[in-house]
Amino acid sequence: MLTAAYVGNRTIELQRARAAPPGRGQVRIHVAFVGLCGTDLHIVHGSMDRRVQVPLIFGHEMSGTVDEVGSGVDGWATGDKVTVMPLVWDATCPACRAGNTHVCQNLNFVGIDSPGALQPLWNVPASTLVRVPEDTGLREAALIEPVAVAVHDVRRGRVSAGDKIVVVGGGPIGLIIATVARHVGGDVAVVELDPTRRALAADLGFIALHPKDFDDPAWLNEWTGGAGADVVFEVSGAAGGITLAVPLAKVRGTIVVVGIHSEPRGVDLQRIFWRELTIVGARVYEKSDFETAVELVSADVIPTRTLITRVVPLAETQAGLAELEAGNAMKVLVDVRAGQPDEDAS
Amino acid sequence: MLTAAYVGNRTIELQRARAAPPGRGQVRIHVAFVGLCGTDLHIVHGSMDRRVQVPLIFGHEMSGTVDEVGSGVDGWATGDKVTVMPLVWDATCPACRAGNTHVCQNLNFVGIDSPGALQPLWNVPASTLVRVPEDTGLREAALIEPVAVAVHDVRRGRVSAGDKIVVVGGGPIGLIIATVARHVGGDVAVVELDPTRRALAADLGFIALHPKDFDDPAWLNEWTGGAGADVVFEVSGAAGGITLAVPLAKVRGTIVVVGIHSEPRGVDLQRIFWRELTIVGARVYEKSDFETAVELVSADVIPTRTLITRVVPLAETQAGLAELEAGNAMKVLVDVRAGQPDEDAS
Repeated sequence: MLTAAYVGNRTIELQRARAAPPGRGQVRIHVAFVGLCGTDLHIVHGSMDRRVQVPLIFGHEMSGTVDEVGSGVDGWATGDKVTVMPLVWDATCPACRAGNTHVCQNLNFVGIDSPGALQPLWNVPASTLVRVPEDTGLREAALIEPVAVAVHDVRRGRVSAGDKIVVVGGGPIGLIIATVARHVGGDVAVVELDPTRRALAADLGFIALHPKDFDDPAWLNEWTGGAGADVVFEVSGAAGGITLAVPLAKVRGTIVVVGIHSEPRGVDLQRIFWRELTIVGARVYEKSDFETAVELVSADVIPTRTLITRVVPLAETQAGLAELEAGNAMKVLVDVRAGQPDEDAS
Repeated sequence: MLTAAYVGNRTIELQRARAAPPGRGQVRIHVAFVGLCGTDLHIVHGSMDRRVQVPLIFGHEMSGTVDEVGSGVDGWATGDKVTVMPLVWDATCPACRAGNTHVCQNLNFVGIDSPGALQPLWNVPASTLVRVPEDTGLREAALIEPVAVAVHDVRRGRVSAGDKIVVVGGGPIGLIIATVARHVGGDVAVVELDPTRRALAADLGFIALHPKDFDDPAWLNEWTGGAGADVVFEVSGAAGGITLAVPLAKVRGTIVVVGIHSEPRGVDLQRIFWRELTIVGARVYEKSDFETAVELVSADVIPTRTLITRVVPLAETQAGLAELEAGNAMKVLVDVRAGQPDEDAS
């Protein structure tokens, strides 16, 4: 079988590998689609070289079907549609013991810290499997993982019906957060510098704004009755994103930090104090978030067809990432089955 | 009567004034002691000149007895021991309508935005009065306001029994927060640069540390079983304070912003994200915090005798502030009754 692996030096290589049988407690998945995301871009850029071991078969947003069930595994059968919640925790660290396994202090993030989904026959611990309904498309199902991120973010922000929500950053995660926040009853504005992304946000029915639209506080005041936003999601990862986000929040409002900030950012702590704001970090997801994400994708709440702007065969993984990097794409999927050698799965 | 007023240009003047009768809905207090605090120092330094109207009789931490009850006021009688919760809200702004009157968007902070307690006969809205038990000393009662701040901070941090707590900044508020956090069952370490203040924290039974003690993570790891602190209070107001505070918190831990940060501070948002930390602002207090503060002072939970390092007559208010500024004092009280002219209260 052919796999796609990051080998260092900004390079992805197609590598021939022999499929292994599933070990005890494992399930072998026949992978269908793998979504490429910002983290994959960071890996291939070398920003995570201290963390990853090369060659690394990456990929953690995926869909597929069960190919073979290892010993000691119950509840799964060949052909079951699945996705993977790519977290393996140690169950012994203080965070796990406190019930926060998803942010285990020694978390194994599958696809970063261990081999990921860019291989047609992928062995994963059965504990990571999440069932996908039969009538959900495999392309759509590849978006369940980023949707689970958004579900987690919205839950961390305690969004409730009627809330005024601002999402700073209109990339894939920003738009999915906006969609999930709207689904729970929020009234959502998306702030984005890029005009194409802003137009897409507007097409999806959100209030679409440029950061400059907040230079004059009149619009926010009118929209929120003088209060400010209930919840602001900082998804941009940019210094300007958090600078914009903090003043938008109402008294006792919440700012959710979703974006990755590579260095310390100037934060107006006086405003945090004065308005008794809350800043919360939100990372990955818990099992319940994944289950909600399955429901939202299956019920067509998520505009998957709009978000998936391109599907490439495995051999074009590097080109897909380049498109993502250029900002021309929202979500690029890799069709892992396309272009595999015509042989038995070995 | 003699009052102490900030008149601009870093100057406090003793001014002769005529005591007014209490208006409708007001109570006239015979003021006993007024505590000087960092905010008063900011006022006299001119840092709040855009906000205050001079001459300003300042002072908002106080104790006294009811002198005269205005019309339309029930429940109070001459001689009642009182302190004042110095907040007057508009009850109509979005924050008030949401139940957060203490952070009203148009808050009148008595002693900053309207005349304060550095006058022997002080008229205040009856709504601001808080009853002090007969057997509580008036000196001690002057500390109820800063204790209410600490009670609010500890409540915002959701401190619970068994929590490991770090207080960054060992001034009066830091030590009172430490005391209140310990009272609810926390195990408390105080971090302070100044050796005298550090020694005082140790005398009060807290683990007393220098920031450098965290250069090696071994101590924190051992103290917290590898988890990190449950709650960290940033009370220093210094850039280094927040830089120190964020890495100390455990996964899903909380950092409470208590100190005043005059400019944006570099905050490690990656850490906020990675550990799913929460930063919350905590400002002033709610009525229940004041009531708890009365109980804690009356029950002698607060080491008031240790914290009150000096009592000066009204005429030496400026000298008292200078001592505070020099860092030689913890809490300086002004004895407002001392040195008043021997006349009827007029």
